Amino acid sequence: MKYDVFSLIPQVFSGYLGCSILNKAIENGLISVTDEPPYGGGGGMVMKPDPVFAAVESVVGTPPECPVILLTPQGRIFTQQDAQKFAEYPRLALICGRYEGFDERIREHLVTDEISIGDYVLTGGELPALILIDAISRNLNGVLGDPDGAFDDSHASYLLEYPHYTRPPVFRGWEVPEVLLSGNHAKINEWRRQQSLLRTAWRRPDLLQKAELSPKDIRFLRDQGIGPEPD
Amino acid sequence: MKYDVFSLIPQVFSGYLGCSILNKAIENGLISVTDEPPYGGGGGMVMKPDPVFAAVESVVGTPPECPVILLTPQGRIFTQQDAQKFAEYPRLALICGRYEGFDERIREHLVTDEISIGDYVLTGGELPALILIDAISRNLNGVLGDPDGAFDDSHASYLLEYPHYTRPPVFRGWEVPEVLLSGNHAKINEWRRQQSLLRTAWRRPDLLQKAELSPKDIRFLRDQGIGPEPD
Repeated sequence: MKYDVFSLIPQVFSGYLGCSILNKAIENGLISVTDEPPYGGGGGMVMKPDPVFAAVESVVGTPPECPVILLTPQGRIFTQQDAQKFAEYPRLALICGRYEGFDERIREHLVTDEISIGDYVLTGGELPALILIDAISRNLNGVLGDPDGAFDDSHASYLLEYPHYTRPPVFRGWEVPEVLLSGNHAKINEWRRQQSLLRTAWRRPDLLQKAELSPKDIRFLRDQGIGPEPD
Repeated sequence: MKYDVFSLIPQVFSGYLGCSILNKAIENGLISVTDEPPYGGGGGMVMKPDPVFAAVESVVGTPPECPVILLTPQGRIFTQQDAQKFAEYPRLALICGRYEGFDERIREHLVTDEISIGDYVLTGGELPALILIDAISRNLNGVLGDPDGAFDDSHASYLLEYPHYTRPPVFRGWEVPEVLLSGNHAKINEWRRQQSLLRTAWRRPDLLQKAELSPKDIRFLRDQGIGPEPD
């Protein structure tokens, strides 16, 4: 995967990428990140179309040969499903700069995807670009040590993870649940699935609606007096 | 504001903070960020309770005197309203490390807030911590040049911003809307409000439900055949 990043403060990227788990992916040639030169514009100003078009087209072609993603609070909200979809492309262009204030013609005629990472305001698009690079790269073969690692997590399945415990079995009087010390793997797996269902139901009922639930899952939730609501 | 950040890769933070707009806020003493020493644990492992409790309590007190925020995909989704609320504290502790895999007793007995920045999986909690630092710091007096700057944006009002345009008036045949060249400020403000309403209605109808709309706004949307739905 090649990421072409357009930013006024490109040094942000080497800082993070050089010391995170992604550094190994870069060293192994799995991903590459190019910082493009500044394209003009200043604080509080609206980015002009000419230099942005010129910078992006000179790097990724006219018209661009890859998705051109604008990081903006006005975009659609980024999800794990987007991360998986974008991971299928060999190349992505990411436009940061000021987090707002792009000439509308850039959005209309150059950009293919407007993405927001969440409903909060940031000082720039650089952290959102790093979030995309991080979330997308996890889905590339060989970036994580464990090839199944990317699929085990919360949000890949729409269920939040069950609670984790490690040593000691008692810490300040707080005990590890007995089932986890039982050695009975069938019972442990059942407990973990139930905890995952309960945690999602309590914290993120919106996600539970999207999860694939077995008849057994549904029976368990109903026994707890929890939906899911019938379709 | 003092941020105490607990992370296995503290060099991430100086990289970003040293070159973003927040660098000036740090130089001016408006915010400070302390990197804490690693608290043990390894890749794919669950973080043990002892070193995490010890690291956090040694810095922010026993029990902690400030909110202790765990960045985790299982947390509640961070919003602009959280950014404003956290900005009222003089100090925040942020726990990153691996993005998952904390001993449950840390969540239950040390952490006051579990926060997720969105429904996607990342390699660690460092970028989410930077997102919080960035979004919260924007709300502190003096961090942005313009004291009203933090309140003008998308998501502070639940309405997405209207389109921006700058020179040239025609770029590759694409014209700036005529009203913006008219010099009639009442008409320009009306057009911008309407564009903001339309954009929010099309892209983020969920936000429109939360926005404060005037009777005139509601009439305009109804004329366009768009809700908002009656309560």
